[in-house]
Amino acid sequence: MNELNALIARFARIGATEDGGVCRLTGTAVDKEARDLFIREIVDRGLTPKVDAIGNLFGVAILAPESADVVLTGSHLDSQPTGGRYDGVYGVLAGLLAVQAVKERCAANPGAARRNLAVVSWTNEEGARFQPSLTGSSVFTGALRLQDAYACVDGEGIPLGEALSAIGYRGTTQLDQNPVRYVEVHVEQADSLEKSSADIAAVSESWTTRKISVMFEGEYSHTGSTPMALRRDALRAASRAIEALYQEVANENAGAHAAAARISVYPNSPNVVAGRVRVWFEVRHEDEAVVSAISDRFLRRIERESADVRVGLSIAADEKRLGTALDPDGVALVLSAAADLGYKALTLKTSIGHDALALQRCVPSSLIFVPSQGGLSHNPREFTAPEALDKGYAVLTEVLWNMVTAKG
Amino acid sequence: MNELNALIARFARIGATEDGGVCRLTGTAVDKEARDLFIREIVDRGLTPKVDAIGNLFGVAILAPESADVVLTGSHLDSQPTGGRYDGVYGVLAGLLAVQAVKERCAANPGAARRNLAVVSWTNEEGARFQPSLTGSSVFTGALRLQDAYACVDGEGIPLGEALSAIGYRGTTQLDQNPVRYVEVHVEQADSLEKSSADIAAVSESWTTRKISVMFEGEYSHTGSTPMALRRDALRAASRAIEALYQEVANENAGAHAAAARISVYPNSPNVVAGRVRVWFEVRHEDEAVVSAISDRFLRRIERESADVRVGLSIAADEKRLGTALDPDGVALVLSAAADLGYKALTLKTSIGHDALALQRCVPSSLIFVPSQGGLSHNPREFTAPEALDKGYAVLTEVLWNMVTAKG
Repeated sequence: MNELNALIARFARIGATEDGGVCRLTGTAVDKEARDLFIREIVDRGLTPKVDAIGNLFGVAILAPESADVVLTGSHLDSQPTGGRYDGVYGVLAGLLAVQAVKERCAANPGAARRNLAVVSWTNEEGARFQPSLTGSSVFTGALRLQDAYACVDGEGIPLGEALSAIGYRGTTQLDQNPVRYVEVHVEQADSLEKSSADIAAVSESWTTRKISVMFEGEYSHTGSTPMALRRDALRAASRAIEALYQEVANENAGAHAAAARISVYPNSPNVVAGRVRVWFEVRHEDEAVVSAISDRFLRRIERESADVRVGLSIAADEKRLGTALDPDGVALVLSAAADLGYKALTLKTSIGHDALALQRCVPSSLIFVPSQGGLSHNPREFTAPEALDKGYAVLTEVLWNMVTAKG
Repeated sequence: MNELNALIARFARIGATEDGGVCRLTGTAVDKEARDLFIREIVDRGLTPKVDAIGNLFGVAILAPESADVVLTGSHLDSQPTGGRYDGVYGVLAGLLAVQAVKERCAANPGAARRNLAVVSWTNEEGARFQPSLTGSSVFTGALRLQDAYACVDGEGIPLGEALSAIGYRGTTQLDQNPVRYVEVHVEQADSLEKSSADIAAVSESWTTRKISVMFEGEYSHTGSTPMALRRDALRAASRAIEALYQEVANENAGAHAAAARISVYPNSPNVVAGRVRVWFEVRHEDEAVVSAISDRFLRRIERESADVRVGLSIAADEKRLGTALDPDGVALVLSAAADLGYKALTLKTSIGHDALALQRCVPSSLIFVPSQGGLSHNPREFTAPEALDKGYAVLTEVLWNMVTAKG
């Protein structure tokens, strides 16, 4: 599968960072460059390109009557600022090649296909520049209204809708067929497969995630002259909250994951006590009750601790993404395809959001993992060996062939 | 002194914020607008405008032989993002009117003047957009090299030299006369005068300030999948350090001031554990030994506490501004002028940096305070009553008259 590796290397040059990683944020010039290349690859392979209103890109193979249902496969081309070369782009490019392979197998087996097949790249999966994440797939399912997605702003106040227009990817075409299945192959971004020396995971379900963005409101004053007792320092309150989150996760001792990784400070000048600070917090666990216990206790604690330093707080956003069970038939299909190919496979729960989880809301969806070295992701050193990527591609192709040709 | 209030109101419209404050950062379009207006005011009053290489603006009154020494008065036109209407601009405009008043008195008293007189606005006193602060006055005294000042970058990486060129204020003229005295009038930005019901303070000396910028180095990883024990979260380490600074100041219990008001987080994306965070810390006290005790203990503590969470740290900048005694003759002159005018005056130490403190390095300098309501500054609600501003202007004018006409 040298073609897959060559394609991954080619896309890795678009937005390449000096440390070997990729920075390809939604709606930027490098996002446009990657989209342009992907559309060219779609056309060159005889697939029909489509760009919808939120900028999701499709490459459709008509294998059955044009009005027949469609099976979708794909992932995303955007990355984190400190992204690696595999997260997302692997699923898009493996999907592209798998669609081509299934199309060729259909040509050799006339009448076998009962469904059409399309590769897709979803807009702004990462949620790095624009929050929330999973934007394109959520608009596709109707979970997020198009106008609300357009209105999401980046750190500079630029709306997603404008950013998409600026790069020419606020599209006007749509997928014409009814989607009946979605399959995504992705690097694991954790080390379960590596630790088990397994090749393939069929993801059975996801953890629950609560994302809470908190605004801390203090008062601007001069850092040089304001007595310590009179300060209302929003950055101090935010700092205490960040440490409190770690402590509450440790207190619960249930293996939850939590983070505070984005902060906005105003005026962020060395000599003005910060008057307004926003922090993006998240708590994740497979058990929703654990997420609620930690996050509710955390919120009560930071409200109390902020009041102690005379800083007010308000909740700017609070979203709970419930754990989602992926389609069980899809899990069985993935395990069966891996077994047929002689690969070691297992089922996993994932702690991370993926487009497949958004799609599952209205289309039976499947998520296939291949190992990530050291579990490292959102890091320039993210790595999966070419042979491991090939195994994921092979399983994907078999699963798609099965879905396209299955009766009933 | 209705003219002073009218001028202050006119400048407050340049960069006015919705909440009644002023945001006039160095090298921006509103900085240019304020500079343009100031130059027009200089010319309209028959003074000679000069703009030096770092963008300091002078308005020179030739009262004595042109080659005679010059007395300087002024302050700064830049503000914090959450600035008030008085900080800096008051000293520039009171200085402008005082130069004009002294010039007229000299015209009425031919032969009285032994020195020339000039008003000055120093570039980037605040250090809000570009660090370090006191840039223009420090270049003027030679404490900061011009090339180093030009190379200071803002949060977007734009150098000060380019920003000054862009607004047309990288000047080519210089003050021709030898400066022998500098006098600055400023709002107190603290509440000592208000508490004492006094009108005027002659500042005798400044506190020592240590400004330390620390880089925390962790590792980028996925917030969703990385187990808590494996994270190397630079934002967590920075948060612990911010709280530690408050605690170390409280432990010392010596009335020191300290702050962490500026932070830079990379990549600052909700789903990437922060790999690199820089925080600007400062510690201030009248006794240098207290500053050293707190800051040294703080640095040892955060090094240990960061290592506990597997985050490295390095010192990106470490500047100690030693407490400075202002010229004692100037203090006596200010107290004497205030007494002559029937105002209640006292001497004060200041915890805040001012251009007068930078100037004192090579020119005997004086700093005059008028009250600030509630001591509030770097805040849109900063306020000093017009009558209180007028008293400062009156003292300034008498002091300048004395300095311009004094023998020896």
